[in-house]
Amino acid sequence: MELSYPYLLFLADIQHQAYAKTAFGLRDWAPERCVGELALPAATISTGLPRLTLEEARARGARALVIAVATPGGAILSGWIPTLLAALESGLDLVSGMHARLAHHRQLAEAAQRLNRRLIDVRTPPEDIPIATGRKRQGRRLLTVGTDCALGKKYTALSLTRKFRERGLAADFRATGQTGIMICGSGVPMDAVVADFAAGAAEMLTPDAAHDHWDIVEGQGSLLHPSYAAVSLALLHGSQPDVLVVCHEPGRRGMVGLEGYQTPTIEATLELNLTLGRRTNPLIRCAGVALNTGSLPEARAEELLAEYQHRLGMPVADPMRGGAALDELVTACITSTSERSL
Amino acid sequence: MELSYPYLLFLADIQHQAYAKTAFGLRDWAPERCVGELALPAATISTGLPRLTLEEARARGARALVIAVATPGGAILSGWIPTLLAALESGLDLVSGMHARLAHHRQLAEAAQRLNRRLIDVRTPPEDIPIATGRKRQGRRLLTVGTDCALGKKYTALSLTRKFRERGLAADFRATGQTGIMICGSGVPMDAVVADFAAGAAEMLTPDAAHDHWDIVEGQGSLLHPSYAAVSLALLHGSQPDVLVVCHEPGRRGMVGLEGYQTPTIEATLELNLTLGRRTNPLIRCAGVALNTGSLPEARAEELLAEYQHRLGMPVADPMRGGAALDELVTACITSTSERSL
Repeated sequence: MELSYPYLLFLADIQHQAYAKTAFGLRDWAPERCVGELALPAATISTGLPRLTLEEARARGARALVIAVATPGGAILSGWIPTLLAALESGLDLVSGMHARLAHHRQLAEAAQRLNRRLIDVRTPPEDIPIATGRKRQGRRLLTVGTDCALGKKYTALSLTRKFRERGLAADFRATGQTGIMICGSGVPMDAVVADFAAGAAEMLTPDAAHDHWDIVEGQGSLLHPSYAAVSLALLHGSQPDVLVVCHEPGRRGMVGLEGYQTPTIEATLELNLTLGRRTNPLIRCAGVALNTGSLPEARAEELLAEYQHRLGMPVADPMRGGAALDELVTACITSTSERSL
Repeated sequence: MELSYPYLLFLADIQHQAYAKTAFGLRDWAPERCVGELALPAATISTGLPRLTLEEARARGARALVIAVATPGGAILSGWIPTLLAALESGLDLVSGMHARLAHHRQLAEAAQRLNRRLIDVRTPPEDIPIATGRKRQGRRLLTVGTDCALGKKYTALSLTRKFRERGLAADFRATGQTGIMICGSGVPMDAVVADFAAGAAEMLTPDAAHDHWDIVEGQGSLLHPSYAAVSLALLHGSQPDVLVVCHEPGRRGMVGLEGYQTPTIEATLELNLTLGRRTNPLIRCAGVALNTGSLPEARAEELLAEYQHRLGMPVADPMRGGAALDELVTACITSTSERSL
C-alpha cells in the first residue's frame, strides 16, 4: 500500500484529545509528513501545527487529507462530507484508518473517480496473506506488549527504533495499526486480518533479514484483554520476538472498554507472554518495562520509575521522558540477545 | 444463515478419506440430513450412502448438493463445474464450506440467478459481530480443546451433546467450523472472522441461557499451534467454558501442517487452557480427556485408555468407542460444575 504524503491532518469537530490519537501520533513521530491541520468550527483541540485552508495546504505541498480522529464505531460522519469532497476537488487524496471504508461512500467514490484522486483505506489487510508456518526467520525482533490497550506500545516501539538507530544499529519500526502505518508508510493492520491468517500476517510483517537487523514491532492489545487477546497472540507467535518490552500505565485500574476486569500486573503479563512466546522462539527474553508516566509530575514519575525498577529487578523507563533510564533499557534490549548469540 | 437440506453429498474426484472429512462428518452425525452421495468417475472413496443421480436425489427429497470435500487452498475446481451447474438445473441449491465463494464464480452465480437457486457459502461470518465484552453469561458451557488440529474436537463435542441429552439434560452443540455448521444447521465459522471480532463471535455463539442449559462448543486449532492459536484463544475467552475436555491422538508426533513442531503433551495443553481460560471464567475446570484411538485395534485402545487414565488421574475415553469410560467422562463433566454451583 503506497500512501500519499505530506499530509494535512483533519481534526473534524473533535473536542477530546483521546479521540485524536492519530493526529497527535503523526505530529509526534512524523512531523516531516505533516504540513498542518484543518478543523471544523466546533473542534476545540489542536495539534499545534499550522491551521491551514485546503488551498494553503496544497501550496505547502500537501498530497493527502488524513482523517486523523476516531469516532465510536469507526464511522465517517455526514458532517465531514463537504470538507472531504472539497479536499478531493482541491487536488488532495484522502487517507483513512477507520473501520468504515472511504471507497464504500457513494459521494466520495464518485468524486474520487471523476477527479482521478485516490481513496486510501489504511485498515485494509494485504491480499494473499499465507497461513503461518512457524519457521524461524533470520534477524532480530523486539515486540512491545502491554498490560492493556492504549497505554504506549506504539510510542515505545517508535522511541526504541530511534534509539537503536542512534546507536548505529539497523532497525525498522513495524507498524501493526492504522496510526503506525500512516507514520512509517507501511505495515499490516493486524486487527483487520481474518483470524486464521493473523499469525501469517505477523510473519509477513517481519520477514527474513540480516542477522544483525532489528524489527521493532508495535504491539496490539493484551493477552489478558478478553476482547483482543487473539490479535496479541497472533502477533506474538508470528513475530517470534527475541526480546519483549512490557508497557504499562501506573494507576490504571480497569481494562479499556470492559466492566469488572482489573488491569493485570506487569509480572503476570510478562510471564504469560514468555510462556506463549516460547512456542515459536524458545530463547525469548524480557529486557525491561516501559512505563507511561505522562499524567504525572516529573518528580513523582522519577520516584515511580525507581520503585518499579527495584521491585522488578530490570530496567524501567518512560520512553517519552528518555534519560539514563531509557539508555539502560536500550542496552538491555541489545545485550540480552547478544549474550545468547555468542 | 438458513441451510437447505436434505443434502446430496458431492465427493468430486477425491481419492483419500482425509479430504472428505465433511462427507464423513455428515454421514456420521447427520444421516437424517443426507439422502445419498454423488461422485465423479475418478473418485475412489465412498461414504457407504446410496450413490444417486441428481434426478434420483431430487426424487428422494434432496434440496441441496453439498461440496463435501476439501482441496488444497480451498478452491472450487473447474472439473466440478458441469456437475454443479447440472445440480442447479435439476432444482438443487449448492452448499459449500470452502474458502473460495460459490457466489464469486461467474457461471455458478449466473445459473443460480436465472434458476432462482441459492448459493450458500457456510464459511461466511455473520455481519455486525460485536467486540467481546467479557461479561459473564448465564448457563453452562463446555469447550473441547486439543493438543493439535484435526484429532477429534468436533466428534467429541457431538458425542458429548448426544450423551448429555440421553441423560435428560438440555444441551446444544455449538458449531465453529464448516462441517459442524452443516451438521447442526447453524453456528459461526470462527476461522473466517476478522481477528478483532473473533472473541465477540464466540460470545455471540454461546448467548445467555437457562442456568441448567449446556452449550457444548466445538473447539478449533490449539493454543500451541503457531498458525491457529489466535482462533483457539478467541474461542476460549469468548465461550467462557465452565468445563474443558482435552482431545488428543496418541502417537501423533508433529503438528499438522508444520515442520519442526512436536505435538505438545496433554498436561501442557491443559495447563495453558486453564491459565488463559481463567481470565473470563475463574471457575474453569478440566473434566477429562478424549482420546482418538481410531487407528488402533480394540485391545490396544483399551490398554491405552487405562494407561492415560492412570497417568492423568482423570476420566479418559474414546467418544467413538463409548462404553463405561465415556459414561464416566460425561459424569465428570456434569459433576465438576455442580460442585461449585452449590
